[in-house]
Amino acid sequence: MLYDVIIIGLGPAGLSAAIYGARYNLKTLALGSVLGGAMAEAWMVENYPGFAETKGLELAEKMKSQAEKFGAKIINDEVIKIMQNAKFPAKQDLPAKRDQAPLDASRNKFQIITKNGKIYESRALILALGTQRRKLNIPGEEKFHGHGVAYCATCDGAFFKNKSVAVIGGGDSAVKSALLLSQYADKVYIIVRGESLTGEPKNIDTIKNNNKVEIMYKKSVSEIIGNGSVNAIKLNNNKKIDLSGVFVEIGTIPASTLLNDLKIALDEQGYIKVDNSQKTNVAKIYAAGDVTNQNAGFKQIIIAASSGAVAVHSAYKDLAK
Amino acid sequence: MLYDVIIIGLGPAGLSAAIYGARYNLKTLALGSVLGGAMAEAWMVENYPGFAETKGLELAEKMKSQAEKFGAKIINDEVIKIMQNAKFPAKQDLPAKRDQAPLDASRNKFQIITKNGKIYESRALILALGTQRRKLNIPGEEKFHGHGVAYCATCDGAFFKNKSVAVIGGGDSAVKSALLLSQYADKVYIIVRGESLTGEPKNIDTIKNNNKVEIMYKKSVSEIIGNGSVNAIKLNNNKKIDLSGVFVEIGTIPASTLLNDLKIALDEQGYIKVDNSQKTNVAKIYAAGDVTNQNAGFKQIIIAASSGAVAVHSAYKDLAK
Repeated sequence: MLYDVIIIGLGPAGLSAAIYGARYNLKTLALGSVLGGAMAEAWMVENYPGFAETKGLELAEKMKSQAEKFGAKIINDEVIKIMQNAKFPAKQDLPAKRDQAPLDASRNKFQIITKNGKIYESRALILALGTQRRKLNIPGEEKFHGHGVAYCATCDGAFFKNKSVAVIGGGDSAVKSALLLSQYADKVYIIVRGESLTGEPKNIDTIKNNNKVEIMYKKSVSEIIGNGSVNAIKLNNNKKIDLSGVFVEIGTIPASTLLNDLKIALDEQGYIKVDNSQKTNVAKIYAAGDVTNQNAGFKQIIIAASSGAVAVHSAYKDLAK
Repeated sequence: MLYDVIIIGLGPAGLSAAIYGARYNLKTLALGSVLGGAMAEAWMVENYPGFAETKGLELAEKMKSQAEKFGAKIINDEVIKIMQNAKFPAKQDLPAKRDQAPLDASRNKFQIITKNGKIYESRALILALGTQRRKLNIPGEEKFHGHGVAYCATCDGAFFKNKSVAVIGGGDSAVKSALLLSQYADKVYIIVRGESLTGEPKNIDTIKNNNKVEIMYKKSVSEIIGNGSVNAIKLNNNKKIDLSGVFVEIGTIPASTLLNDLKIALDEQGYIKVDNSQKTNVAKIYAAGDVTNQNAGFKQIIIAASSGAVAVHSAYKDLAK
């Protein structure tokens, strides 16, 4: 089965591309390890036009069903390698569970290898890879990851019922995480490097009026301390704060490491360079959503979804040539 | 009351801008004569991510409530004039029902006059004016407008129950209109200038399998004939077709005539030129949605909504300077 278009990523950009791909009668496959991508971590989405209040994962599930209704195939599987016109994948790239025939390199196409041992092929590729969490890179962070250090309040907040936690960061995602954590924890510190919180003013208003929350400006964390699990953080002024959980919310980096073997142009931060049609520098490879260099300071579900539609529209036109 | 931002237009671009404006705690007013804009005419929307099936007007109503929930003001009123730093509006521009004080031109701001006789003022302006229907400009079109000649199948389709009608045009909106009309009319001709239908392949498949529909390629209409109301059309080959309704679906033109007094740069077709931040050439005036020169060949609700969010984000940053 040769797909017309394979979309990598199941966030709003990828799912929107899947909806539009199917609407254009393209044989469309969307692959990804996390349905909803970063959106799935959103405990509450209030700014996607049409939904005054929805959980991120619910919105992702709606988009998925919509894409499937129109004929797109959505598979939950992690892409581990992307190739173009490979005669045969290198032995070390082939998963043990590999169950398909050798590749036919007679046509111009892309080959995608997944963790589950599948190889999928397509005529065009849409990269909706999203972003990964930026790390603090301080002592204790790696050691206590999963034992008090977390990167997703929606996923892990409930473990900290009646405890003290800190959110590291001052942007919108830090503020929203603190809001959510205050529903579980007794005390939520927000450790902000700068002099103010940024992000949606509505959220900032709410957090400032929350009496469980203490905002500490012009502070950073130098160490995460624990014994089996986290029991304190040390600040840059050497002050120690006793707590059980640390939520790192200091932004994201583009998830573009998969692209090593393709000659896709990235910007200095690693975001995929695209034009207004979502085209990359490589023919029949498009990119959409948070992994692109568009709207760098304003990553929104509505913008990602829009760019996914544009990407597949460009693919549709190029494939018809 | 000086608004931070006034949005002109209540389509998806305008309503999305209103949602985001309110989320940013901007004093936000959105004004327009038709809730939903062109989207309101959509009998069925299937490609807005998150809604597998919704009426365009219902989606508009959801977006409106969402914006109002967060504090935006939405007023149904037609804007008849836009001014910048006017000392006092010219007498001939003032509606009879004018009930407000003379303008204070001491600050840099925009003034909007509406049909209902109101004057609203703001620090920034978002133009989400949308498009108007393109006309055939043939004999009979103007004469029988409202008497058999129509521009919106969703609005007027039901008047043609068990009758014969023609849709003029071959794009996606023509195809969708024909699909809808086939639910009422006994016979639907599609008169296409070119050799094929364009638009979403899913819709084209459906229309070709509809036995009430007859597609006539490489034809155009030279005259609309009637007696009080339409009873026939004459084609370019002089063939006459007896029918009761003519739905003109030959595209749209940007609704940018309101801008005569502002020095907004337009492209050759009259679309507002914007950059990637939705900024026009005039400071603190932004444009979003179908009235802009972006994605000219691909006008979609999701794209308009995205650009509305970006426009208000730009306004927010500029107003904070």
